[in-house]
This record gives sequence, structure tokens and C-alpha cells, in this order.
Amino acid sequence: MNQLHTLYTVIDLGGTFAFAISGAIAAKVKGLDIFGILVVSFTVACGGGILRDISIGAIPPTGISDWRYLFVSLIAAAVAVGISPILKLLNRPVILFDALGLSLFAVTGAQKTLSYGHNYEVAVLLGILTAVGGGVIRDIFLNRIPVIFENEIYASAALLGALVVVTGNYLGISNQWTFPVGFLLCFTLRILALKYHWKLPTFNKSK
Amino acid sequence: MNQLHTLYTVIDLGGTFAFAISGAIAAKVKGLDIFGILVVSFTVACGGGILRDISIGAIPPTGISDWRYLFVSLIAAAVAVGISPILKLLNRPVILFDALGLSLFAVTGAQKTLSYGHNYEVAVLLGILTAVGGGVIRDIFLNRIPVIFENEIYASAALLGALVVVTGNYLGISNQWTFPVGFLLCFTLRILALKYHWKLPTFNKSK
Amino acid sequence: MNQLHTLYTVIDLGGTFAFAISGAIAAKVKGLDIFGILVVSFTVACGGGILRDISIGAIPPTGISDWRYLFVSLIAAAVAVGISPILKLLNRPVILFDALGLSLFAVTGAQKTLSYGHNYEVAVLLGILTAVGGGVIRDIFLNRIPVIFENEIYASAALLGALVVVTGNYLGISNQWTFPVGFLLCFTLRILALKYHWKLPTFNKSK
Repeated sequence: MNQLHTLYTVIDLGGTFAFAISGAIAAKVKGLDIFGILVVSFTVACGGGILRDISIGAIPPTGISDWRYLFVSLIAAAVAVGISPILKLLNRPVILFDALGLSLFAVTGAQKTLSYGHNYEVAVLLGILTAVGGGVIRDIFLNRIPVIFENEIYASAALLGALVVVTGNYLGISNQWTFPVGFLLCFTLRILALKYHWKLPTFNKSK
Repeated sequence: MNQLHTLYTVIDLGGTFAFAISGAIAAKVKGLDIFGILVVSFTVACGGGILRDISIGAIPPTGISDWRYLFVSLIAAAVAVGISPILKLLNRPVILFDALGLSLFAVTGAQKTLSYGHNYEVAVLLGILTAVGGGVIRDIFLNRIPVIFENEIYASAALLGALVVVTGNYLGISNQWTFPVGFLLCFTLRILALKYHWKLPTFNKSK
Repeated sequence: MNQLHTLYTVIDLGGTFAFAISGAIAAKVKGLDIFGILVVSFTVACGGGILRDISIGAIPPTGISDWRYLFVSLIAAAVAVGISPILKLLNRPVILFDALGLSLFAVTGAQKTLSYGHNYEVAVLLGILTAVGGGVIRDIFLNRIPVIFENEIYASAALLGALVVVTGNYLGISNQWTFPVGFLLCFTLRILALKYHWKLPTFNKSK
């Protein structure tokens, strides 16, 4: 049980770091100042989780009451600002880190919702919200249509990750299995979709 | 009492469907994919109600815990995608469905707030929020200034609907009367304003 | 104690008025109608506080349950619409009123969070949120990148004000001292930053 709790914490902070890096890089590219970069970094990292916590009645939201999330966002902002040469070696680093955060948060978001006693639908929807909420807020802040609504496999990957956790819970399978399986399926789907330009169909004939 | 409850449910799901159609059509026109259309459809349909439920302490919000809202959004997204030829026969279908949802949600939003024991001001403000919240979120998602802030009779129509319900409650008049009266007044005002281009005054001389 | 409570109320309504004026002027310049101006005015004035109240579990948020906030927003919208000639004499009036609201809300937001029994980190973060939340919502509504993310001393000034209140609370110093000190430090920093174009560093070499 303690090991599971440690794993949960590691995954959670890992997802926070991934999203914070994604937010910090996007904010830096837009020319925001160091404080603005930190605010976007923190908001993107914790925004989805904060919306989830407010929806399930976890007051105050963990994102603002646990110092580790703020600390991780600070580190991520510093890394994004400081090691720019390293980050530039990675191809489209924002999207890579974004995929990591997406997968981790879909899984942990669904699990936390279940642990608060809510039903399966709430768990799936808030798993998706935890995963995509931060990115949607980032895109709204940066004044563009959220990436989630482009014709790419994005929120649907989060749906897959959350569904694995919820289905596992229904079948009585341990988190030890559903967490890595849900994470890997979501991450793999997202990366493959990026690599092979998999898209969901659109319906605007005139566009 | 049971009949009233059934009526409330029918009205609520009807409003959800109207807003979901409005969101799905707007998302489809913007060229979003099928999952994006569903997400916008659901968010527009339930966004205002979710914000209301969070504000009155109804946790988790009904919009995410009751499967019927998600189901109705799914149907609406499918209809918007599938019966495009029929929808195109209607003149500006988004705005028509939007007016239906606006009127229904102003009335039910005010009523639910009262039933949670909050005061008349909260009921009027959250009636308006329930009615216009989804549309505002839709427009933020689609990266444009919310329709509510254009110089048309929109939120003021919702104010009228919510005021009827609250005034009726103060005077001890049954929902059976205030619901249809508030709905019809709001809907009529909105449609007449659209037809005759009624506008509220603006104050930017230079524009 | 009663005097402190009166002071708290006066400061709170003063900050509300300052932000409401800021929102109303911005909405008027954009050419919104009288109802739209009122909605933006109210949302900017109370948006940060409502987000804070939802985060600390103060349901329903004071901004929508206490009629004085709505009344103050109404007055502010009327003033902004009515005394345009006077307002135009002030240089960049939106930014001046914005700085007043920023300072007042950083201080009162941190204090209210502490009074609900939350920890110092929550108080600092929600002090900043109370201060900048309304302005961020205003800029999202008006479809532009929030001012907070420009390279100016803005949220960092709110951080300073909130830190003074939280540090004072930790050291057992009365609000009587920390309120005016926090307010004046935040306001002075913001105004000096505007006057001398103090900026925080940015990191986008190519821009």
C-alpha cells in the first residue's frame, strides 16, 4: 500500500513536471516574462487537477495546497528558461512533454475521482478533464483555439487511458496493472497519431 | 409533484439538447473532428449548469454525474454531423437552437438555485449564468468575443426569464405557471430582437 | 474588531469598484452594449473573488450572494458610461483603476483565505488569484492575451502584497498594519513599474 502511494505520488509529480515544462516552453516562445512563464507553467500543470478537485469537492485543491506542485512548476520553468539549447535538440518538445502529461493525468485523474466515491462516468469525464484541462487553459491564455479541438487524436487518447482505469476498477484489477497499461496505451496512441498523422474525421465540407 | 419533476427533467434535457446542437454545429463549421465536436457539444450543453452547480455546492455537478446529459450531447453531435442537409434548410440554425437553450436554462437555473436555499440575487445571477455560460465557453473555445457581449438582446432575455421564476417564487406562484411564462417571455424577446435587430445602446463614440 | 470589519468591508467594496470601473471602460471601448458593459464590469470586479471562494469552499461565493457587489458594479458601469469626459482626462484610466484593484484584492484575498483556515501557500496563491483573476477573465472575454502575461510587473506586485499579509500573520502582526503596508507596497511597485517601464526579463531570443 505504501509502495502504491509512493508510485502514485511519483506519477503525479512526473505528470505535473511534464505539463509544467510544456506550459513554460509555450509561454517562453510567446515572449512572456519570467513571472508570466511561471504562472502559465503552474496553471497548465495544475489547472486540470484543480478543476477536477473543485468538481469532486476536494477543497482546497491539492494543486494549490501541496507545496510540491508549485515547487515542481518552479523547477520546470527554470529548466525551460535555462537549458533552452538542450530543449531545442528535441523535435517539437512541447508536444512530447504534452503527451507525457496527457497520459499520466488521464490515469491519475480517473483514479482520484473514483477514490472520492463518484461514479464511473464522473471518473472517465474528470480523467479526461484532468488530462486536457491544463492544455486547454494554456491555449486560451495564449489566445488560440485549444489543441484539443484540432483534428488530432488528443482527448480521445485521454479517454482511452481513463477507460482502462475505470474498467480495471469495475473488474477488480489492481492499480498496479491498470496505471501502467492505461498510461502506455494513451501515450502510444498519442505518439503514433502524431507520427503517422492519424486524424479523426471532420465534417465541414466547405473547408 | 411527480408530474412536476417529470416536466422539470423534460425541460432540462430539452435545453441540454438545444445547446448541444448549437455547440456541435459551431464546432463542425470550424472544422473540428468528431471527438472535438462531441467535447464542444457537451461543454456548451452542460458548461453553464456545471458552473452553477459548483457555485451552489451541488457536487459533483449533475452535468457530469447523470449519464443522460452526456447521452443527449452524443445524440446532438450525431444529429449535427449526420443530418446536415436538414439543418442547412433552417436559417441560422445555431442561433435558433441557442435561443431555445437560453430560455430553458434561465428558468431551470434560477429554480435549481432557489431549491438549494440560496437567496433571490444568487438565483437571478445563476439563472443568467446557466443560460449564457455554455455559450460564453463555446465562444472562448472558438477564440472569439462571446456573442453575449455583442450589442444584441441576449443575456438581458435570460435576466427576464430568471426574474419571472424568482418573482413567482416570492409571490408564491407555482412553477407550473412561472416556468412556461418565463420561458416564453425570454424566447419571444430573444427571437423578436433577432428579427427586428433590437439592440441595446453602446457608448463608444469613436467606433 | 467592529472597526476592523468595517475597514475590511470598505477596502473590499473599494477594490470591487476599482476593478468594475476597469472592466466597464474596457468593455465600453470595445463597443459592447450597456448590458454587456455591466456583465463585464461585474465579472471583472467579482471574478477573482468568486474563483477564490470556490477554491476555499465559501459557497455560495460572496460576489454573487451579497447585493452590494452587484450594486457597486452597477454604479461603476453607470459612471464609466456617464462621465466619459472626466475619465478621458485621466491618462490610461483603465490601468490606474486596475492597479488599485490589484493591490486591494491581493491583500484581502490572502486574508480571507487565511481566515478560512487554509495554509500559507494557499493564501499567497489565492491572494494573487483574487487580484489577477478578474483581469485575466476580462482579457479572455475581450479575446486577447491577458495583460498579466505581458512583460510588466503585474502579478509579481500582487505576490508582494499577499506575502506581506501572510508574513504578518505568521509573525502575529495585526491586519491593521499588514493591510495598508501590503496595499501600498503592491500599488507603489505597480505604478513605478508602469512609470519607469520596469520589466521582468523575457527569454525568447528570436522575438
